[in-house]
Amino acid sequence: MLSFPLIVLNFKVYPEVIGENGIRLAKYAEEVANEYGVGVAVAPPVTMLSRIANSVSIPVFAQHVDPHPPGSWTGSIIVEIIKECGAVGSIVNHSEKRVFLADISTIIKRLKENGLIPLLCTDTVETTRAGAALYPDILAIEPPELIGTGIPVSKAKPEIVVGAVDVVRKINPSTHILCGAGISAGEDVAKAIELGTEGVLLSSAYVKARDPKAILSSMAESAIKAWERNR
Amino acid sequence: MLSFPLIVLNFKVYPEVIGENGIRLAKYAEEVANEYGVGVAVAPPVTMLSRIANSVSIPVFAQHVDPHPPGSWTGSIIVEIIKECGAVGSIVNHSEKRVFLADISTIIKRLKENGLIPLLCTDTVETTRAGAALYPDILAIEPPELIGTGIPVSKAKPEIVVGAVDVVRKINPSTHILCGAGISAGEDVAKAIELGTEGVLLSSAYVKARDPKAILSSMAESAIKAWERNR
Amino acid sequence: MLSFPLIVLNFKVYPEVIGENGIRLAKYAEEVANEYGVGVAVAPPVTMLSRIANSVSIPVFAQHVDPHPPGSWTGSIIVEIIKECGAVGSIVNHSEKRVFLADISTIIKRLKENGLIPLLCTDTVETTRAGAALYPDILAIEPPELIGTGIPVSKAKPEIVVGAVDVVRKINPSTHILCGAGISAGEDVAKAIELGTEGVLLSSAYVKARDPKAILSSMAESAIKAWERNR
Amino acid sequence: MLSFPLIVLNFKVYPEVIGENGIRLAKYAEEVANEYGVGVAVAPPVTMLSRIANSVSIPVFAQHVDPHPPGSWTGSIIVEIIKECGAVGSIVNHSEKRVFLADISTIIKRLKENGLIPLLCTDTVETTRAGAALYPDILAIEPPELIGTGIPVSKAKPEIVVGAVDVVRKINPSTHILCGAGISAGEDVAKAIELGTEGVLLSSAYVKARDPKAILSSMAESAIKAWERNR
Repeated sequence: MLSFPLIVLNFKVYPEVIGENGIRLAKYAEEVANEYGVGVAVAPPVTMLSRIANSVSIPVFAQHVDPHPPGSWTGSIIVEIIKECGAVGSIVNHSEKRVFLADISTIIKRLKENGLIPLLCTDTVETTRAGAALYPDILAIEPPELIGTGIPVSKAKPEIVVGAVDVVRKINPSTHILCGAGISAGEDVAKAIELGTEGVLLSSAYVKARDPKAILSSMAESAIKAWERNR
Repeated sequence: MLSFPLIVLNFKVYPEVIGENGIRLAKYAEEVANEYGVGVAVAPPVTMLSRIANSVSIPVFAQHVDPHPPGSWTGSIIVEIIKECGAVGSIVNHSEKRVFLADISTIIKRLKENGLIPLLCTDTVETTRAGAALYPDILAIEPPELIGTGIPVSKAKPEIVVGAVDVVRKINPSTHILCGAGISAGEDVAKAIELGTEGVLLSSAYVKARDPKAILSSMAESAIKAWERNR
Repeated sequence: MLSFPLIVLNFKVYPEVIGENGIRLAKYAEEVANEYGVGVAVAPPVTMLSRIANSVSIPVFAQHVDPHPPGSWTGSIIVEIIKECGAVGSIVNHSEKRVFLADISTIIKRLKENGLIPLLCTDTVETTRAGAALYPDILAIEPPELIGTGIPVSKAKPEIVVGAVDVVRKINPSTHILCGAGISAGEDVAKAIELGTEGVLLSSAYVKARDPKAILSSMAESAIKAWERNR
Repeated sequence: MLSFPLIVLNFKVYPEVIGENGIRLAKYAEEVANEYGVGVAVAPPVTMLSRIANSVSIPVFAQHVDPHPPGSWTGSIIVEIIKECGAVGSIVNHSEKRVFLADISTIIKRLKENGLIPLLCTDTVETTRAGAALYPDILAIEPPELIGTGIPVSKAKPEIVVGAVDVVRKINPSTHILCGAGISAGEDVAKAIELGTEGVLLSSAYVKARDPKAILSSMAESAIKAWERNR
């Protein structure tokens, strides 16, 4: 369902992603994925999950999901409702939507039981080690202090990326590892892959770009090249 | 946009409301609204807002909305995204999704600024007095200990309903007042209206009914009769 | 138990208040209270409540209290344990420790049932109106964006203070009203009282002062003078 | 500072532990520790930390601590203030006071940097694996559904205890492991140690016992015997 290297585009709830604009941003992502043969996934606002999953063939993730089973949980976003929309998985524990340890474990379990993919976010080497021990399919390390800064984690804190790759390999080698925060250009993506990750998680650099398709194309091209060099 | 007496159907995230079943439940609600001339609104899971708003002409509410403006808020449900789906408003502060006082105020303000309707839930006469002071368009008093019990608040705790109606009338007479928790039959709705409310908020009695349309029809009929008696 | 005008000193968990330093800060406060005949109360870290209540005769508040009754609530701070320490009340819903609406109501009720004084914090005129409707003994309006800035609310946003005084007088005239945020000098306290409040809530300007007793004395003197002018 | 086998007595905020009664319960614990040569630690309400640490020579833990550094955090319980009271460590992430993954990591780090002992609670084998990866000094597995039931985890769910011991040994052999929930008698403690733990965490069985010292003595005796058999 997923192919690597993988670029995950977190739409957050930026004004640029609401409604038709968000669908267009998802379609550009699909075009770049097809053109470059790189994995691209999108995580739109929860209200747009079904529309976007119906509009594109690339994987669609929820940005968050609650631990509850179906039932009397007004206002919750549960695994079964994101699955029904066509989501293939969910981001879990983004630094803007933190989750209790016990609930992270429940969410990962519930996603897997329903055939969906947990993409767990962590913020340090320590929490990456803990997160890897919960066996998510994908883990993305994102130092929150770099989010939205344009200062790429892969350049500013390469030791955190390398450290995270290292602990994930030791604890659960089958977990795919991404990095995020400040990723803004093709070279940041290349650097992330050179450090041992299998892709990146980004948001504003794509969503707020003057020419989102151009920037994503440049990232895809750099990702593929770095990926082939790494082999 | 809303007509009274009003029956608000909170779908929560019950298994019975996911996907096509939820759309069918919304359509029954629309049929009953048209047949009996009673106000009926539905609050489906957030992932189904746009599909249901596109499928029916009755008002559709979100079950919850966060206080944030558009921006870097991964996983949040914001006013602008529920509005884009066609929601006319949102439940705020349901006892299953409690909200900080400061955030309730922000949410009510943001909903109104965007032309949407806040439906604030409170749990006691005291919190109803506080809630009314925030000037929501609709306020629903729901003692949480009766939710899902089948013991209707309008019969078990009429003094709470009367007390809530009273404080709302004093603080802000233009706020519409509903009551909820345990509402299961037409007579519970009639009783709620006799106590001074303008309708009810219910969930499992509709969603999990063997024949949801029949039970809603019975409630609609009782509501209209009680409404006319009250005039 | 309380006398007005009242200066409430919130110690937060600043490094300057831990251990003997905190006790000294409480004693200075007592000395100023006695010398100037102004009300002064202190809100030390919860671990120091009993030591400070045993060391001074001025009123001691907790900074926060949870809504739970005694029982199986690991890690909670409940009304009964702060009372046993000699606290006369608690701050409720400080902007650094926000509380759900339903819990604010429960906390205020539980404090009063135990003979303690709720000091409710609110952040806008709207939340002040809602908060006043919960009948706290004291209400302090503190726009959070001014906290710690040294820009006094009484000068920067007098309309918020006046608006808050106004809604409190209308909803529950027996509630004492304070204001806070940015209060750093005697003239800020005087201005707050001239705007109709009965005192102030402050923190860093006292706790981090080179000469805390001097600054508090100056505030006490200004408070008394403004208080007498207002009569 | 700690000796094993270790019995940790979580006082929670039961009515039986407030004030002088709590001090007496701590003194009984000290007497049993001295008499039987078993490790016993107490975790009183946060308001009583300094009084109890001054009254007994056995280790005293906080029940919870927040991740913040000293500063502008009204109502927080921080590492520096529990240390100043004489606490030797803190329970972290009790199921009644759950914590975000990122904050657990910060709390463990801050406790260690201040020379204090983190006692991390987890609820399943999965969260134990994650928790062990954060290198707490002590880890206690407590299935929350058994807390307060009198049904001991060591008998009802031995596979969870064995599984937890196993993952902790693999991830970080220097972490001490306890189990809790439903521990009510000496034989439950013996069974816990036979399963590979180094002690237990309990609450109501001690705090609410007709004769707390007798029940703790019986547990201490069983603990020592099981400990010697295990060698």
